[in-house]
Amino acid sequence: MKTTNNHSVPGFLASAVSAGLNKNGRLDLSLIFSQTEAVTVGVFTTNKVRAAPVRLSQERVKKGSIRAIITNTGYANACTGAQGLNDAIQTADKVAKGLEINPEEIAVASTGVIGGYLPLNLIKNAIPELIRNLSPNGFRSVAEALMTTDSFPKMSYFEGNAGGYPFHLLGLAKGAGMIMPNMATMLSFLLTDIYIDSQTLWPIFRSAVECTFNRVTVDGETSTNDMVLIMANGNAGNPSLDSSGLKELERGLTEVMGELSYMIAKDGEGATKVIIIEVDGAATKDDANTAARVVGNSNLVKTAIFGQDPNWGRIMAALGRSGIELEENRVQIWIGGIKVVEGGLMTGERAEREAAERLKEEQVTITIHLNQGSYKDRITSCDLTYDYIKINAGYRT
Amino acid sequence: MKTTNNHSVPGFLASAVSAGLNKNGRLDLSLIFSQTEAVTVGVFTTNKVRAAPVRLSQERVKKGSIRAIITNTGYANACTGAQGLNDAIQTADKVAKGLEINPEEIAVASTGVIGGYLPLNLIKNAIPELIRNLSPNGFRSVAEALMTTDSFPKMSYFEGNAGGYPFHLLGLAKGAGMIMPNMATMLSFLLTDIYIDSQTLWPIFRSAVECTFNRVTVDGETSTNDMVLIMANGNAGNPSLDSSGLKELERGLTEVMGELSYMIAKDGEGATKVIIIEVDGAATKDDANTAARVVGNSNLVKTAIFGQDPNWGRIMAALGRSGIELEENRVQIWIGGIKVVEGGLMTGERAEREAAERLKEEQVTITIHLNQGSYKDRITSCDLTYDYIKINAGYRT
Repeated sequence: MKTTNNHSVPGFLASAVSAGLNKNGRLDLSLIFSQTEAVTVGVFTTNKVRAAPVRLSQERVKKGSIRAIITNTGYANACTGAQGLNDAIQTADKVAKGLEINPEEIAVASTGVIGGYLPLNLIKNAIPELIRNLSPNGFRSVAEALMTTDSFPKMSYFEGNAGGYPFHLLGLAKGAGMIMPNMATMLSFLLTDIYIDSQTLWPIFRSAVECTFNRVTVDGETSTNDMVLIMANGNAGNPSLDSSGLKELERGLTEVMGELSYMIAKDGEGATKVIIIEVDGAATKDDANTAARVVGNSNLVKTAIFGQDPNWGRIMAALGRSGIELEENRVQIWIGGIKVVEGGLMTGERAEREAAERLKEEQVTITIHLNQGSYKDRITSCDLTYDYIKINAGYRT
Repeated sequence: MKTTNNHSVPGFLASAVSAGLNKNGRLDLSLIFSQTEAVTVGVFTTNKVRAAPVRLSQERVKKGSIRAIITNTGYANACTGAQGLNDAIQTADKVAKGLEINPEEIAVASTGVIGGYLPLNLIKNAIPELIRNLSPNGFRSVAEALMTTDSFPKMSYFEGNAGGYPFHLLGLAKGAGMIMPNMATMLSFLLTDIYIDSQTLWPIFRSAVECTFNRVTVDGETSTNDMVLIMANGNAGNPSLDSSGLKELERGLTEVMGELSYMIAKDGEGATKVIIIEVDGAATKDDANTAARVVGNSNLVKTAIFGQDPNWGRIMAALGRSGIELEENRVQIWIGGIKVVEGGLMTGERAEREAAERLKEEQVTITIHLNQGSYKDRITSCDLTYDYIKINAGYRT
């Protein structure tokens, strides 16, 4: 059922063009449009520096229905003050005119370098073509147009059933760098034709975000532009969702956002491996989360995994500095399913050799049992490699 | 007055040998010895995972006088449980026997890979030669024997005057990686012949550590083996210190530990540049410290500096996620003295070009004014480069 092929959702159209915002001429401006009214909810970055499109879209989503999302890459439109906000508004106005809808029904999203002003003319000039190209089959090109340092487009698709009515859920995301969504998340759009009201949708959506996007880190950096929006246009024609319909939607959201999250870690800047950190036996819920997050963001752990070195001492050191409740002699650690630490001590060189073998794989699970309590958590991260340095030392030049 | 040449302090002897703890035959075992009783105070890691030598030395320093410090590299003797503690005790016992002093007067320090047991026989076998070689001129070789991934030995020297009596202060340190001392510090030893009691020495020493070693970060990782000890043997023969004598000692400690801290950042694993982050105008003392620390540990800021890119947007994003009180439109940022951000907005491309020129230098100062209050702080960090990955992806293999 999962795939990154092209997919469509009844009632939604999409398109992407190259507006010349990036030097290499790739797709960099995209539009998603719901032909009818759509219930929309969203989560936004918790970074105190918030990009103009985040400010604008958050306000509009709060007010009610959103029918279109326009997204550009190349420029984050963050740290751009009043002019930045005006640029976002003007972008939306131009789209509204073309689509003949209310400008308040348009969300704007941006990703790219922080600080530069949007090349508004390039964007305005490209909007007519963007609108002309709208099509039910445009979503793959939108996923491509969301890419910055991403190496592949990120889409996930789910087909469910709500009280006998089939419905569809399509998710798109951008990933790669400046990613530790922590409470909010990065850029992602979800589209569904299920019929649901926003009060019912919000808690299901929020909790699915919490256990998917909010459990990914690439580099511990929370972006100024994070935003996830879900639009539900009701085209499936289902009646009000009963508990089994809600469960089905919850499953779909968790699957689609879970898959997109995994893709983001896999395509972390320079990453060669996905690292899953599972923590169990924490004294509190926060401790479980902190432990997983500190290990998942440790440069020394991430470089060791890149070097295929089961260097569990670095995991112990990271746990020790994390501020959680910890007794060294209770800690157990498994790398790739091989127990390398028992009671805070190494289990032996043979186990390390076996763990080193497992580190050759593309996905590595580090399992930590703290034996302090009963709380658990899980973070998806990636390794830290030469290419992360290469990408980020030369990003603007 | 400052230098990394060899120096001596009356009443102290030192030596270093190669005990075969590292593959390449370099100096890896060292001894510092006070010929008379010495007042000793110290600070130790706040990591909850604490190496055996840290446990042992902290207890012994608390009890009273320390006369000798033995240090090995190659093995951290951390996460080694009862056997590790016993190995540290046996190491001290062997030294005590050779020096004919009480084993309780011996501190043990270790640095290296976490998790492996000390090759105790290699250490024991080398101790007789270590004692035979003790000399007033052995300190440079001790500084060399402290090196792991360090590229140069770290020494600093100060000559002061306490009420007409000249005194000497010599500092040695190891640096390079797993360094964000935060509340404690990494491995460093200070030796002085000043006469002072421990109650007087402690607060001066603690506050000098706080503004030097505790303001350095290489990679945001707090080690399990951090330890700074200062031994004062009273050989200078000065009377009880008056306020001007105390100030002189304070100046000496701040200079010597300040210089060692700077060397640690300069020699951070793979570093090509020292980055000094100055924060002013914070709402609270903690905010000032947090802001400096989050920017100084940001992989995206550190890689931008390596790439000589004055990418101030990443500094804004790091500040925004740091959790401090912040209003975006009040922030000012200078890179290398060039103002690149005013009121949260870029000052222009010309300023960025000038800032880029400054980034070619080996030391870069990032100055941030938050305009929220009157608190300031300062952190010394370094850039993140290919060589950090190289060193840490292959550290054990």
